Order: sequence, then C-alpha cells, then structure tokens
Amino acid sequence: MENKVENKPCPVTATITLIGGRWKPIILYHLSDHTRRFGEIAARMPVISRKVLSEQLKELEADGLINREQFNEIPPRVEYSLTELGKSVRPLLIHMATWGQEMVLNARSTNIG
Amino acid sequence: MENKVENKPCPVTATITLIGGRWKPIILYHLSDHTRRFGEIAARMPVISRKVLSEQLKELEADGLINREQFNEIPPRVEYSLTELGKSVRPLLIHMATWGQEMVLNARSTNIG
Repeated sequence: MENKVENKPCPVTATITLIGGRWKPIILYHLSDHTRRFGEIAARMPVISRKVLSEQLKELEADGLINREQFNEIPPRVEYSLTELGKSVRPLLIHMATWGQEMVLNARSTNIG
Repeated sequence: MENKVENKPCPVTATITLIGGRWKPIILYHLSDHTRRFGEIAARMPVISRKVLSEQLKELEADGLINREQFNEIPPRVEYSLTELGKSVRPLLIHMATWGQEMVLNARSTNIG
C-alpha cells in the first residue's frame, strides 16, 4: 500500500493474493482439522462448481498452502491437507469468523430492535 | 459452512461477502485513520481503475462499512470515511497484515537460505 513506493510488497495485498477471494478461506477452513478427499470438500461446499473448486485447490497447492496426495488406486484417490503455511492461517480464519459472527448478530438485533 | 445445513449464515462467508475480494481490505485500510476524497484514495491505489474503485466504494457504502459525504461545491467534493462497523474491521486488517508480513519474510528467507 503506502510502501508500494519503496517497492516493498504490501503485506495485506500478499495475504489477499494467497487467501483472498470468495472460496479459499472456506476451503482452508474445511481442511483445518482434517485431511479430506476432493468429494468430501465438494460435499461441504455445494454452492461451488467442481470445476471452480478444482481450480481453487490447484492455486492453493501452487501457493504452498495445501498438500495434494494422489494414491494410485482404482478409482484414483486424491487427498488434500494443510501445509504448515496453511495451518498458520487458522487464527486468521477464526478472527474472520468471530468478526462475521458479531456482525451477523448485530445486524439481526438491529433489524429486530 | 457446516452449519449451512441448519440455514444459519456462515460467519466466515458473511465476512468474505462484506470485506472479501481483491480491493476492499485495501480501501478500508486507506480509510482507517483518515477521511479521504475519492482522488486521494485513487492516488494510493494506482493499480485499480477509477471505475472499479467507484464500484467498490458503492458496495462498501451499501454494506454499511463506509460513509459517503457529498459537499455541494464546484467542483463537487466527495469524502469517504469509515462507519463504526468499518472501524471494527481494523483489528482484522492488522491481523491480515501481520500474517502477510510473516509469510513474505519467511518466503524471502527460504529463497535466500
């Protein structure tokens, strides 16, 4: 941001680049305590198409946030889990959830009151 | 997320809906300590087009995160500032910046070492 002038990467931009967007925080959340197969993640996010989910998972893997492990079985099994970097996002996700929770509650009480 | 089954809004999704995306956290950051005119925000975000910035500001205003005040001067002056809800995002932005900073530093030391 301000420090772009000095050609230093902006830390907020860095964060958004890696975990920003509509789906990535939610994917990371679903992997936060579990290794999961593609279909298990898809089942928890019925709104997202499998194509988009697949793309998001590839980006998260390329950015070092998740591991993808393929087992040579028939049918092939693919499992996803968080890397150490991915695990380090957890407190930030909890913070996002807390803020969202308070906001939802406040909005509701405002509507009722 | 999990609780979508119960038709409760997911708090992480609520947060992403309001402050997610590529630009909103950065816009909020630039307003965090200052009331700013449109041109002042634009000058701090040279990468974003004025059209997109204008759209993002409208969404932030509609979601109750920022105030837009228009002064009937010639040329017209428009100023943006954070609402109380917008101010409540500040600790979350700082958390995002902290995580991004550590990640950038780690990535750099990994590249060097």
